[in-house]
Amino acid sequence: MRPVTIVRDFQIGPTASLLIKMGNTHVLCAVSVEEKVPPFLKGQGTGWITAEYGMLPGSTNTRMQREASRGRSGRTYEIQRLIGRSLRMMVDLDQLGERTFRIDCDVLNADGGTRTAAITGAAMALHDAFGKLAAAGTMPMPKFTRLAAISAGIVGGEAMLDLDYSEDSGAEVDANFVLSEDGRIIEAQTTAEGAPMPRKQLDELLDLAEKGVSELLELW
Amino acid sequence: MRPVTIVRDFQIGPTASLLIKMGNTHVLCAVSVEEKVPPFLKGQGTGWITAEYGMLPGSTNTRMQREASRGRSGRTYEIQRLIGRSLRMMVDLDQLGERTFRIDCDVLNADGGTRTAAITGAAMALHDAFGKLAAAGTMPMPKFTRLAAISAGIVGGEAMLDLDYSEDSGAEVDANFVLSEDGRIIEAQTTAEGAPMPRKQLDELLDLAEKGVSELLELW
Amino acid sequence: MRPVTIVRDFQIGPTASLLIKMGNTHVLCAVSVEEKVPPFLKGQGTGWITAEYGMLPGSTNTRMQREASRGRSGRTYEIQRLIGRSLRMMVDLDQLGERTFRIDCDVLNADGGTRTAAITGAAMALHDAFGKLAAAGTMPMPKFTRLAAISAGIVGGEAMLDLDYSEDSGAEVDANFVLSEDGRIIEAQTTAEGAPMPRKQLDELLDLAEKGVSELLELW
Amino acid sequence: MRPVTIVRDFQIGPTASLLIKMGNTHVLCAVSVEEKVPPFLKGQGTGWITAEYGMLPGSTNTRMQREASRGRSGRTYEIQRLIGRSLRMMVDLDQLGERTFRIDCDVLNADGGTRTAAITGAAMALHDAFGKLAAAGTMPMPKFTRLAAISAGIVGGEAMLDLDYSEDSGAEVDANFVLSEDGRIIEAQTTAEGAPMPRKQLDELLDLAEKGVSELLELW
Amino acid sequence: MRPVTIVRDFQIGPTASLLIKMGNTHVLCAVSVEEKVPPFLKGQGTGWITAEYGMLPGSTNTRMQREASRGRSGRTYEIQRLIGRSLRMMVDLDQLGERTFRIDCDVLNADGGTRTAAITGAAMALHDAFGKLAAAGTMPMPKFTRLAAISAGIVGGEAMLDLDYSEDSGAEVDANFVLSEDGRIIEAQTTAEGAPMPRKQLDELLDLAEKGVSELLELW
Amino acid sequence: MRPVTIVRDFQIGPTASLLIKMGNTHVLCAVSVEEKVPPFLKGQGTGWITAEYGMLPGSTNTRMQREASRGRSGRTYEIQRLIGRSLRMMVDLDQLGERTFRIDCDVLNADGGTRTAAITGAAMALHDAFGKLAAAGTMPMPKFTRLAAISAGIVGGEAMLDLDYSEDSGAEVDANFVLSEDGRIIEAQTTAEGAPMPRKQLDELLDLAEKGVSELLELW
Repeated sequence: MRPVTIVRDFQIGPTASLLIKMGNTHVLCAVSVEEKVPPFLKGQGTGWITAEYGMLPGSTNTRMQREASRGRSGRTYEIQRLIGRSLRMMVDLDQLGERTFRIDCDVLNADGGTRTAAITGAAMALHDAFGKLAAAGTMPMPKFTRLAAISAGIVGGEAMLDLDYSEDSGAEVDANFVLSEDGRIIEAQTTAEGAPMPRKQLDELLDLAEKGVSELLELW
Repeated sequence: MRPVTIVRDFQIGPTASLLIKMGNTHVLCAVSVEEKVPPFLKGQGTGWITAEYGMLPGSTNTRMQREASRGRSGRTYEIQRLIGRSLRMMVDLDQLGERTFRIDCDVLNADGGTRTAAITGAAMALHDAFGKLAAAGTMPMPKFTRLAAISAGIVGGEAMLDLDYSEDSGAEVDANFVLSEDGRIIEAQTTAEGAPMPRKQLDELLDLAEKGVSELLELW
Repeated sequence: MRPVTIVRDFQIGPTASLLIKMGNTHVLCAVSVEEKVPPFLKGQGTGWITAEYGMLPGSTNTRMQREASRGRSGRTYEIQRLIGRSLRMMVDLDQLGERTFRIDCDVLNADGGTRTAAITGAAMALHDAFGKLAAAGTMPMPKFTRLAAISAGIVGGEAMLDLDYSEDSGAEVDANFVLSEDGRIIEAQTTAEGAPMPRKQLDELLDLAEKGVSELLELW
Repeated sequence: MRPVTIVRDFQIGPTASLLIKMGNTHVLCAVSVEEKVPPFLKGQGTGWITAEYGMLPGSTNTRMQREASRGRSGRTYEIQRLIGRSLRMMVDLDQLGERTFRIDCDVLNADGGTRTAAITGAAMALHDAFGKLAAAGTMPMPKFTRLAAISAGIVGGEAMLDLDYSEDSGAEVDANFVLSEDGRIIEAQTTAEGAPMPRKQLDELLDLAEKGVSELLELW
Repeated sequence: MRPVTIVRDFQIGPTASLLIKMGNTHVLCAVSVEEKVPPFLKGQGTGWITAEYGMLPGSTNTRMQREASRGRSGRTYEIQRLIGRSLRMMVDLDQLGERTFRIDCDVLNADGGTRTAAITGAAMALHDAFGKLAAAGTMPMPKFTRLAAISAGIVGGEAMLDLDYSEDSGAEVDANFVLSEDGRIIEAQTTAEGAPMPRKQLDELLDLAEKGVSELLELW
Repeated sequence: MRPVTIVRDFQIGPTASLLIKMGNTHVLCAVSVEEKVPPFLKGQGTGWITAEYGMLPGSTNTRMQREASRGRSGRTYEIQRLIGRSLRMMVDLDQLGERTFRIDCDVLNADGGTRTAAITGAAMALHDAFGKLAAAGTMPMPKFTRLAAISAGIVGGEAMLDLDYSEDSGAEVDANFVLSEDGRIIEAQTTAEGAPMPRKQLDELLDLAEKGVSELLELW
């Protein structure tokens, strides 16, 4: 796994923000809190957690066109939904009051594994935000399950953890795992890019992911 | 698993079309062939397979607004990408010539498992289209790997196959599997909706999926 | 006129649904009911009837791009407005309560005359929906005027009824008529595609349309 | 019929332009010429005629929102298609060379009958443009069929010509006719707004329309 | 400065409307009044003034594509914001009650200086609208500061006022000034198009603009 | 003026990138080079410089909605055009070959003066990019005019330089200046927000801006 660094309070405006660096993949995570919930939850006394994901035009080797001009891509929608779903497993929404926690994950530099870095960083930033609101007396600190995410893959027939862009480009199988601190699976996704995978390799990938996630959880 | 029926040639215009019914989930799959490939493949002598997914407004209990008026949802993008990726594992794209096979999957009735029904139906329709083009001498029949997809989930702590809408609504974990005829994993996705899943339940889900997929492959 | 078949309850979710087949033109009509009206009618105690129209990508010989990606065409808007206007002549809106009846007309196979088939099918499906709501005690059965629609045209100098796609492509004049059961004109539209039409040919087209509509009304 | 005035050369930039006033309905018609045709006509040696329609925000009593912010309405698409179809009947497109004539019809003041005023004005402006190009030696003067359009309706049971906004609002039937100088029907559209129309009233509307169109043709 | 003409009541529907002609630049200005304010001002007892700007397709030598089809351009947004900001300096918004005055500025013919002509015309039309509402007893006449706008530029090294299109195309510097009747600066914008401008030329441009604006104010 | 810091190579992919910090306003500037020019310049042997501007959702105190979901605002278009115009004055485009230099300016933290910080940073980053391409032998180093931009305003009747957000919110007049190293005016914009400005205050603002820009140029 590549070296991981967390730079807290990178932005000043949001309730909580941090920059997570995994090698040359750098993702800025910012938590905003709104005192209302989406229409489908109104009046139920429960909260909501959602996420948005973006990549700066200069985050990739070849400039990426802005989604403000070309519209959000299918990939962006897919990642946003994944981040939001994962974070909602972290805490009992009923403990949040009628509040929406929106986590913006913006990629400043992309070198593979941006979606899993985003989940890991977003979970920590969200935890920071809970802490600040609790310290300010706005809400009690909710019980939470720590979680982290890591990418893995089959490259040249071998299971590997935390692929960078060049490893990922040649992988036969791409995988992303979101695991809770007690080792349960929140989200597992494996995708054959070059060739289908024998079932026993899924086990190898999960073994690696468990190791990676427990290292990431030490950063909390 | 719910009873499965295939109605071939439901539409007249496309190169191949069929209606797949899995219980009350009915998906129309139609294959169109274009004698060109997307810009990034031009001049490489290789083909392309892609998919689009839609739901008719009346396919659900509460009418679903058309994507022509509200724009494609994140869910639609996610499903389209999943279908396309899976089908591209079915055949060596180099054997297709500079042709694009586009499979439209339109849900007429939705009762859970529409994305996996779409993949299963699309794979069969694509195979039909290959056969027709080969019979007409347009291209040689490519070698292919049969595949099928099935949904599964954890409901009330138990692993279950092929969830209908009401089972799916209460599931702790949703899962979708795309497997090849030789039992390898093309795509595995598990999502905690209610609670994270112990790793051993992933094995139970995979066991069920293998059984389901082999039944589906008997329909070819 | 081509043979006509009605398949009821093709979809499970909507209040009423049917598939109308006129030759190789197949249109799925589904009625949804909402317990509210558009803003301009709010609080007036009156109901509303509106329609949406779409064509599946595989309904035509050359695949039709989805309106979810290219936006609704002018043709689609024109047809939707025509269906909605025609159906609103079928019943006194004041008898419906503050309810909106939305009829989705989706073309599964297109071989000419899709808009008139849609009107004929939508009127029957709307009648079915009234019957179901009346049977359930939700509203009294409103008085209604049965109506049907049929296309016609001048082909090679001759007036013809119910043109299929190949006849329509070579027609000098295209026409669409929506008539009530007592022979009055709800909507008459004639369009010169190849050459303007002498006034007396309008009479011949109307004669044909009256005959066609009375046959269609026998299906109710 | 309301008094009609034509003000030529209202705009300076276009090949031809005029302002047509029918009572308080004022429509600006401007013809632009492009030395190319739409893709579907390329290389066939034939020309094309098309139209766009718009209403200024201040053209109505209650300000109309710009289509630049809300998108073109179904009504706008319907009218644009009607104008374009009608004008294409005026001249043999093969005589125009590979040129597109685009007529912009912009309503400055709207008091009923804007679409028919637009057709009448556009036909005259198009004729002016042909004359200018012919005078400049750019193309020979094509043979043309003069045409004009007029609205009519059933108000209080009586057939009426050229309805203004207040008459139109209370009409049982709205109708629009585009007729050629030799009395043939280019486009006939009748729409029941309040009640279906007995067939003999269509004859009365056509009698009125013929009279109105022959008066309009005297303005050429 | 080119000759200026004001034609009042060019449109019938709006509260006030006028056509301002500065040489061959003709802009139609129409004021609509709504009895509500944007959300951010609700309940504060204050009014709002805003503007929209458009160009008819035939206003330029080469036809300009409609913003209804291509979307509003950056230039349009920039001009709309400039007009709105300038007009809001004309009157104390607190004196308007909870009303929105929206001024539509539509260019019928464009020959340079359309944005400054729009501001000058819009200010006069807005004043007319205040007068009409005051005469009708709807609101008291607010105190206002008369203002006007004029373009200027550096052409061939010389400061010039009120550039037409051909002068503007070759200018080294473009400038727009909005001045109040007491000579204060509401908006000053200078843009180097060909070469940066020595500071003393800004003074020359301002001298010219003061002269131009005082002539324009005599038209009130 | 607030303290200014430049952090070079903040992003890895672009040809050149830097982070400019003016107090709590932080803007990331990244230069991408494309070996082609916009259509209107094709084949003329000249280059092009353009800019895009964005704000991260967490850059402000109240979260800013993404332009990917709400569309680019008028303010964004206005700023992008200003940055692009200013940079095109920095160098003779003919010396760049048929290349487009696109500078992305993304605001990470916003505390007033983001557009002027963006211009200052973008000019330096563009200079860096020229240097790298020249060092690599891709193109000769073009001659350039150094430039910088600074905001100013009238607050409580006094001219002030480099306003932060809270000063800017209460300013009577907002101003932005882009000046070249030899003191000429590239762009001057003053906007009355609270009250029009006597002409002599424009001189005071320019005096301040000259001082500010010469300090900024020392950073090159």
